[in-house]
Amino acid sequence: MSKEVKTESVSLDPLGAAAAPEQGLLCIFGTGDMGRSLGQRLLQSGYKVVYGSRRPHSCGPLPQGAQVMSHAAAAQSASVVFLCVHREHYDFLEELALQLKGKVLVDVSNNLKKNLYPEANAEYLQRLVPGAYVVKAFNTLSAWALQNGPSDANRQVFLCGNNAEAKQAVAEAATKLCFSVLDRGSLSAARELEDFPLRLFPEWRLPLRIAVGLTAFFFFYVLIRDVIYAYVDQGKNISFRIMVSLANKVFPIVSLIMLALCYLPGVIAAFLQLYRGTKYRRFPDWLDRWMLCRKQLGLLALGFASLHVLYTLLIPIRYYVRFKIAASTISQIKENRTSEFDQTLAWRTDSYFSMGILGFCLFLLLGITSFPSVSNALSWREFSFIQSKLGYLTLFFCTFHTYLYGWDRFLRPSTYKWYTPPGYMLALVVPSLVLIFKLLLLLPCVDRTLMRIRQGWERCDVEDNSKKSLLT
Amino acid sequence: MSKEVKTESVSLDPLGAAAAPEQGLLCIFGTGDMGRSLGQRLLQSGYKVVYGSRRPHSCGPLPQGAQVMSHAAAAQSASVVFLCVHREHYDFLEELALQLKGKVLVDVSNNLKKNLYPEANAEYLQRLVPGAYVVKAFNTLSAWALQNGPSDANRQVFLCGNNAEAKQAVAEAATKLCFSVLDRGSLSAARELEDFPLRLFPEWRLPLRIAVGLTAFFFFYVLIRDVIYAYVDQGKNISFRIMVSLANKVFPIVSLIMLALCYLPGVIAAFLQLYRGTKYRRFPDWLDRWMLCRKQLGLLALGFASLHVLYTLLIPIRYYVRFKIAASTISQIKENRTSEFDQTLAWRTDSYFSMGILGFCLFLLLGITSFPSVSNALSWREFSFIQSKLGYLTLFFCTFHTYLYGWDRFLRPSTYKWYTPPGYMLALVVPSLVLIFKLLLLLPCVDRTLMRIRQGWERCDVEDNSKKSLLT
Amino acid sequence: MSKEVKTESVSLDPLGAAAAPEQGLLCIFGTGDMGRSLGQRLLQSGYKVVYGSRRPHSCGPLPQGAQVMSHAAAAQSASVVFLCVHREHYDFLEELALQLKGKVLVDVSNNLKKNLYPEANAEYLQRLVPGAYVVKAFNTLSAWALQNGPSDANRQVFLCGNNAEAKQAVAEAATKLCFSVLDRGSLSAARELEDFPLRLFPEWRLPLRIAVGLTAFFFFYVLIRDVIYAYVDQGKNISFRIMVSLANKVFPIVSLIMLALCYLPGVIAAFLQLYRGTKYRRFPDWLDRWMLCRKQLGLLALGFASLHVLYTLLIPIRYYVRFKIAASTISQIKENRTSEFDQTLAWRTDSYFSMGILGFCLFLLLGITSFPSVSNALSWREFSFIQSKLGYLTLFFCTFHTYLYGWDRFLRPSTYKWYTPPGYMLALVVPSLVLIFKLLLLLPCVDRTLMRIRQGWERCDVEDNSKKSLLT
Repeated sequence: MSKEVKTESVSLDPLGAAAAPEQGLLCIFGTGDMGRSLGQRLLQSGYKVVYGSRRPHSCGPLPQGAQVMSHAAAAQSASVVFLCVHREHYDFLEELALQLKGKVLVDVSNNLKKNLYPEANAEYLQRLVPGAYVVKAFNTLSAWALQNGPSDANRQVFLCGNNAEAKQAVAEAATKLCFSVLDRGSLSAARELEDFPLRLFPEWRLPLRIAVGLTAFFFFYVLIRDVIYAYVDQGKNISFRIMVSLANKVFPIVSLIMLALCYLPGVIAAFLQLYRGTKYRRFPDWLDRWMLCRKQLGLLALGFASLHVLYTLLIPIRYYVRFKIAASTISQIKENRTSEFDQTLAWRTDSYFSMGILGFCLFLLLGITSFPSVSNALSWREFSFIQSKLGYLTLFFCTFHTYLYGWDRFLRPSTYKWYTPPGYMLALVVPSLVLIFKLLLLLPCVDRTLMRIRQGWERCDVEDNSKKSLLT
Repeated sequence: MSKEVKTESVSLDPLGAAAAPEQGLLCIFGTGDMGRSLGQRLLQSGYKVVYGSRRPHSCGPLPQGAQVMSHAAAAQSASVVFLCVHREHYDFLEELALQLKGKVLVDVSNNLKKNLYPEANAEYLQRLVPGAYVVKAFNTLSAWALQNGPSDANRQVFLCGNNAEAKQAVAEAATKLCFSVLDRGSLSAARELEDFPLRLFPEWRLPLRIAVGLTAFFFFYVLIRDVIYAYVDQGKNISFRIMVSLANKVFPIVSLIMLALCYLPGVIAAFLQLYRGTKYRRFPDWLDRWMLCRKQLGLLALGFASLHVLYTLLIPIRYYVRFKIAASTISQIKENRTSEFDQTLAWRTDSYFSMGILGFCLFLLLGITSFPSVSNALSWREFSFIQSKLGYLTLFFCTFHTYLYGWDRFLRPSTYKWYTPPGYMLALVVPSLVLIFKLLLLLPCVDRTLMRIRQGWERCDVEDNSKKSLLT
Repeated sequence: MSKEVKTESVSLDPLGAAAAPEQGLLCIFGTGDMGRSLGQRLLQSGYKVVYGSRRPHSCGPLPQGAQVMSHAAAAQSASVVFLCVHREHYDFLEELALQLKGKVLVDVSNNLKKNLYPEANAEYLQRLVPGAYVVKAFNTLSAWALQNGPSDANRQVFLCGNNAEAKQAVAEAATKLCFSVLDRGSLSAARELEDFPLRLFPEWRLPLRIAVGLTAFFFFYVLIRDVIYAYVDQGKNISFRIMVSLANKVFPIVSLIMLALCYLPGVIAAFLQLYRGTKYRRFPDWLDRWMLCRKQLGLLALGFASLHVLYTLLIPIRYYVRFKIAASTISQIKENRTSEFDQTLAWRTDSYFSMGILGFCLFLLLGITSFPSVSNALSWREFSFIQSKLGYLTLFFCTFHTYLYGWDRFLRPSTYKWYTPPGYMLALVVPSLVLIFKLLLLLPCVDRTLMRIRQGWERCDVEDNSKKSLLT
């Protein structure tokens, strides 16, 4: 008694197909790329495969060992039918209603665009052939993976369908092809599965736009203040500084602002709840969207921080830096100056570096815990401890690092070329605000009220309003 | 025939509830935070939801579309009841025994502390309502995740319960809410699931304490030997060195010792087995606990090693270092000295750096393979090859790196200020011992005996003892 | 009604064993290491355990609480039998055919080598005891994990077997021991499961050999050109440069070549398809094998790139470098030279560093997305976007970085010592070819043809051939 026997007969008895399908036999409609790849792989895994075709005698090269029949005969002969046809050609299935009755009909199709049709392909199919048990599956895999077995982003087969036995039959076949199966529930999830292969980092778009916008703005800001100012004011061409010095000013600025932008929406939400006196009113849409992309904001900030670290560590190898140091040593000797060792400067720069390193290492830790496999292994309490407590500590270290960089230059007029503040001062605005607001929220009286609101308590005067604006 | 139909009717027929529950309808007891969030999400996913309440007419704002009834009527109407009530209020369920008979009762509750009650909430509930099929589920999720769907540490719903069909019904609902389901077995696992959300890195506590202890000790040790000695002996204030120089002495010391502490228990266990002549006697408790936190010890050691790398690479940017180098160049010129290039010194320092880099990269590799998703993809043989063979190689590189750092200073009396050895010498004790012991274990005669013991062989004279102390 | 009851009785009724097995009782054959560990763990998890032994009264120490019986009595008493015996001793099971009829027989065995026997142990067992339901399971775990519960590479229990109910019974037991279960299909997958624990990075062997080969070749090449040439030509001993300078020449060369080798097979495959005019003919075997190890090639290349980064950042701390810089400053002063600041040199070196850093960061991103947990979370389109588009960008940055390193030295005769080109020029050959070929493939006319071929179109003149060489 082999497994294939079970697989094939699973939905046979209770449903009574027109004729007894052959055991261990799978049917594929469609001789295109998907159909061929799937058939070949199924044959290699020990299944018998029959193709259904409009013109069984002229349908091009098929995998060795596969039979070709008319659609009706093929559907009759098997209990599971894989439909590897484009949605536009589904019409012919209506005529096969009788043969497909009680069969498992696996919809493998994908669309070229999102929202091309009002309903999902699989739901349309179910409406077309109401007697069959439609299962959406395999559509998230590439044809290459179907032919060669699981590889990197092609390990999981997402399933959905209204019939548990039908899903089980498809899951067994997928397991046998070495894929791991993820049941996504009833057929109403089909739309989601059909949109999945078309996805191209939707949740990264807003953060990426913010990153590109900030980078562009600060690049030109720093370019004007540094390179162009030097050229206009002193006639010096220091354009070579663009490649490293300017980049190493822009990256940390963008990184710090984006890190602060991760924590700003949480602070805003808290103040909104305090102001409203209830947590049962929805946040505005922009705040919801912002909160949902905090992780991506943080990871991009970490990327910029890593660039900043590498650019900084590279400094002493640069020709320009070596030249400058040698020139300063030579001029010291020639002018017979002896510069005194400045204890304060040593303390300040060393603290500045230390803060930066500690902040970066904590930031790395935040990044590591956002790996799916790591965050899955954490309890909710552990995850929020790291992302919230250690997150604010990271923000504090990085902000402090930037303040130490500025030091007494905040008060020096020469810093403000063309009456503009240097980039790092602009970068300090958002993080400082976030940290100040967070400190306010940690005051015992505020903290207590917020805690009560979050536990469900409502201020009396808002109760009426909140009842009107019920959760939707 | 939709999936919801199946879900609802799953445990109906064989058990005969008082009246036929409505299909596709779920019942929630409790209108608190969890109850509301869960109800809202279930409604969004296409379920019908009815709330059971003591006072159906005054229970505050509920999600739009949900009905409210008395407890009895609500329990009657559905076949799955989600219990979103604190354990202290479970008593009212005893009166509903009739309505809950044969129903799936999902216990979502959590406690505020571990070991507050002698038995798990779910087990207590099962005792209270013996006729219901209690399933523990959803308790590891935050209310926010219940309302908004899966996010980082809230992707998995852990289930346990004594009835497979009841678990299946709950698993279907969880799948429909897009969570992935992990079955943890029978209801006796409920305690574990209830402790999970309260967990805060229990397995990291011992390693963290060791790390903090070692860091504190070596910080003060190095502080006294470096900064205070310089002040007392030569009247020089070099306190600025605390931020970077001292940190960069303490971090590698702690890292090396902790790396060695990962491998020490394995060596001790081997010698214990050799001494006892059998592997069938339990190790002492402290050794068991030590062996279970080796991974955490190693990851902390890797963190300290990373800090050491960053601090080291930063050296040439420091003001103090640049000042010193310039001063030395200037003094060379003024005194008209010409220092000879020292081949041995070049070999030694370059070897020292090379060993350090190779050791660190191997260490990183060890860290990467301890990611859950990576180690799950490895066979046991592969994992132990990396963690054991490459692990000892890492320890060897790092120890050798430290010996090269010391070089001939081991013999110089000026090294031993106030008769104390420098920190790195103390750091070398444990790793050297581990490496020597490991070498002893690799001697053919010892290795052969150990292998035989590990394959189950016992030395004759101990057989009687070992039989008495059977495995427990 | 507890879960154990269900587990035990699962395959009882329909199959009619000789006598009613006791409920909640598991049987273990074999009192070796695996048998003892498994028994102890099962006992701890609440199961009753009985051992079957040839000599029930003298079988050595067993876990406390376990009973010992004759094989026949033990098999009779339980419905699940764990077989912890070597394959060579399976013969005795033939005599137990009656007692094992309808029982779940779990094969835990492993072999010492691959392909020792013509058929898998579990398949042999099924042939030996055709009346039992053989399930292959637990063999991928170490005895230590069986005794102590899941740990790093021992979290998953792979199952296979022909009977779904038997697999379910074993899956429940594995779940109860806290392992996660992965169903691998029918018993024909047993061979794969038995080979798994013997695996030692098979897919890494070819890439590792390439890496070692390239490293060895370029090490000696650079050694001869740098160290030996300097000794022969100028009589200078610069052997100290081996440790860092030479390593830092070899690592980037190997890294760049291996990165290019990741992308070369894809380009070759495209040209092969263009030449053949069809995609329905198999690639040569060497190309298939090459394409399957691209990920490993890339990760090794990333490892070498990381070493290159660390060695490079270390440069300014080296004694040799500090000595050279000081010497150059001193000689400038003594000879009263003033070197001019070279704008072009500054642009060039800074661009060179920038390209390197950006290339390395993109490379890191490629590495991070190849983590199983990250690539599983990506859609196929997202994964191929990163690995292909960003991959080529990485290759371009790294190649450009190397060209900038060479700069005008390509034309200087003094570069070609002993008429050999420096290592980095050799390193540029493969990446340049890959980039040129890729550019050719991106030409609109070529791109369009390739796209059509990949969508299934075939050039007329080859259609006959391709039909003959059907996919196998």
